[in-house]
Amino acid sequence: MTDSDITGAPAGALDGIRVVDLTRILAGPFCTLLLADMGADVIKVEPPAGDPVRGQGAMVEGYSWYFAQFNRNKKSVVLDLYTDEGKADLTRLLETADVVVENYRPGVFAKMGFSAERLAEINPRLICASVNGYGSSGPYVDRPAFDFIAQAMSGFMAVNGDPDGPPSRAAPPISDLIAGLYCAFGVVSALQARHTTGRGQQVESSLTGGLISMMAYLSAEYFATGANPTRTGNNHPIVAPYGLFQAADGEIAVAPSNDTFVERFLRVLGLEGLLREPDFADNAKRMANRDALNARINAVTREKPVDHWIDAINKAGCPAGRVMGLDEVFTDPQVLAQEMVIQSEREGRTPIRMTGFPVKLSQTPAALRQPPPELGEHTEQIITFVRNATKSH
Amino acid sequence: MTDSDITGAPAGALDGIRVVDLTRILAGPFCTLLLADMGADVIKVEPPAGDPVRGQGAMVEGYSWYFAQFNRNKKSVVLDLYTDEGKADLTRLLETADVVVENYRPGVFAKMGFSAERLAEINPRLICASVNGYGSSGPYVDRPAFDFIAQAMSGFMAVNGDPDGPPSRAAPPISDLIAGLYCAFGVVSALQARHTTGRGQQVESSLTGGLISMMAYLSAEYFATGANPTRTGNNHPIVAPYGLFQAADGEIAVAPSNDTFVERFLRVLGLEGLLREPDFADNAKRMANRDALNARINAVTREKPVDHWIDAINKAGCPAGRVMGLDEVFTDPQVLAQEMVIQSEREGRTPIRMTGFPVKLSQTPAALRQPPPELGEHTEQIITFVRNATKSH
Repeated sequence: MTDSDITGAPAGALDGIRVVDLTRILAGPFCTLLLADMGADVIKVEPPAGDPVRGQGAMVEGYSWYFAQFNRNKKSVVLDLYTDEGKADLTRLLETADVVVENYRPGVFAKMGFSAERLAEINPRLICASVNGYGSSGPYVDRPAFDFIAQAMSGFMAVNGDPDGPPSRAAPPISDLIAGLYCAFGVVSALQARHTTGRGQQVESSLTGGLISMMAYLSAEYFATGANPTRTGNNHPIVAPYGLFQAADGEIAVAPSNDTFVERFLRVLGLEGLLREPDFADNAKRMANRDALNARINAVTREKPVDHWIDAINKAGCPAGRVMGLDEVFTDPQVLAQEMVIQSEREGRTPIRMTGFPVKLSQTPAALRQPPPELGEHTEQIITFVRNATKSH
Repeated sequence: MTDSDITGAPAGALDGIRVVDLTRILAGPFCTLLLADMGADVIKVEPPAGDPVRGQGAMVEGYSWYFAQFNRNKKSVVLDLYTDEGKADLTRLLETADVVVENYRPGVFAKMGFSAERLAEINPRLICASVNGYGSSGPYVDRPAFDFIAQAMSGFMAVNGDPDGPPSRAAPPISDLIAGLYCAFGVVSALQARHTTGRGQQVESSLTGGLISMMAYLSAEYFATGANPTRTGNNHPIVAPYGLFQAADGEIAVAPSNDTFVERFLRVLGLEGLLREPDFADNAKRMANRDALNARINAVTREKPVDHWIDAINKAGCPAGRVMGLDEVFTDPQVLAQEMVIQSEREGRTPIRMTGFPVKLSQTPAALRQPPPELGEHTEQIITFVRNATKSH
């Protein structure tokens, strides 16, 4: 059933792995997207009304490109899991699957009749993955979850933004995406364990837990010192110069993370003499006089365009880049060379543009194997198959 | 050699997988941390001067807790890869390994004598993973990379921040961490492929590519409409009310993502009558009159403390949370229940506090198996072992 759908695509790393996908909106679908891109046979089970994302975001020819981005390479099966027939069909699907992924609130899937114990009865080799807001135990387990709240409760928002301004969120739903990626990593790790144990297990990630794990040196500093990190906007908390500078036609981001890089940067500007002035002689002094330092630098950088500076500063070995809007990102020669913009072709429709694959494997690469599915496009094919397979038991 | 080091820890999902880790600083070490937490035997190969992170961040009893956070569960071996002896020892290590991870600039590892072809000769089952700034081909391949620059060049910075303010970075080095996590996912996917193909392959992720893949609906909207998304600070671009509100003793984050949630939220405040006023009757009107709406809401929320509102709004089924500093995060009962703060015990030293494991597996859980290593702590044990193993060939 799987192979006939794949025409001309290379073998994937997760070929032969079947995933039953009960997720909707974002964190769960991102997890199963990553598995599908790697070659897994992902069967997206949707309620009769479909994943709500089908109706969200800008539509092209009646189709949500937001839905397409998150659901390429998947098949769509409609089941009404409020009915006995729907539950029976789901049970049959789970018998044939390696992985099930759900992002219900903790406890809901069990109430629907699919507790961990029942799932292990149905299929002891099944890996049962869950993405949720706060984890499946603890005092907040029943709270509704949402990316913005996870950003607030993980400490992430408190460290972002200007020192004089409010805590600031990141615009992308970063906690959903990180939780989805962690869950995909957990699922593939559980596949590896199954080669040894012969059994499936439960895998779980959460929006808040995932983002907390990304606090990096900010959390390490807090644990070591007991002091909360302060917000420093685009400035580095302990290095100057660093940040955004003004070129003739826009801004440049420059990140000289230590004295060697600072000297390389200032040399490009013809400002290496600054390092012999008492106010700027070492990092501590440059931090204390950051405004004056930045003014001296901006006076030079303003004279020439962004392209000139980016090229010259990088050639000198100091990290620098343009602050890009998405229009620049998706026409950038490096981004295109890395195939981070791809097109899903579909007969009679405008090809759907979407972001490409962030993990490159040389022999079993991620690839476009299926266009994003119409709601229920594969219901008949797949449900007929599993019903017949069960009969022949 | 591996088993004797593990005392009382449960079996890990990646038990028996040996990883040679040539990475330093952040993205690469985060990748190998995730593999080590899952049970892989990670051998961190350090130059005689050690990973620079050993000297960074706040020290406790002379030990960097930043280093500890990123290098727990690993062993440390010192090799000077500028010498023939060091290269010979590395070759012996690679013969016994399943995975090698490096985060040199593209081409550097090949120049050191370890091209993809040579690595496949040394060990055809070896999975060779690389984390870098821009990918290993394309016009920017030789540029030095850094998190701040990747945030600028991925479009991430351009969408974060207030509409009237500058593009804003996230304070944590989010592009490093996401690239490391993607690489770990790629490595474990390649392990799964190896069960079929019998061979290793190259795996790669990049700081910019990883962050681009997280632009989610912002990139989908750009592709569908051709328009750059605008910065909206903490406000939702298309929903009101939404964001931070003032309680008597702090701020609360509230995310009512559609009309149902808006009504639940306003009902808690006794403000459901607002929905019958012409200025606030639907989402479009509430967006147009957001300042007036927020003022009406803040007038009520200011009357009671954060705890009251968080509890009441969640009970009504609308996502809400406290904006937490790290001091609140790491004493929060849910965070503690999820074991997101753990301690690495070490004889004669203050236990090192660090963040816990963001992916939970029920049967082969992530666990603390080894304290973060001293520089070269395992050199003799491991290098003697592989030299003897080679002799006995």
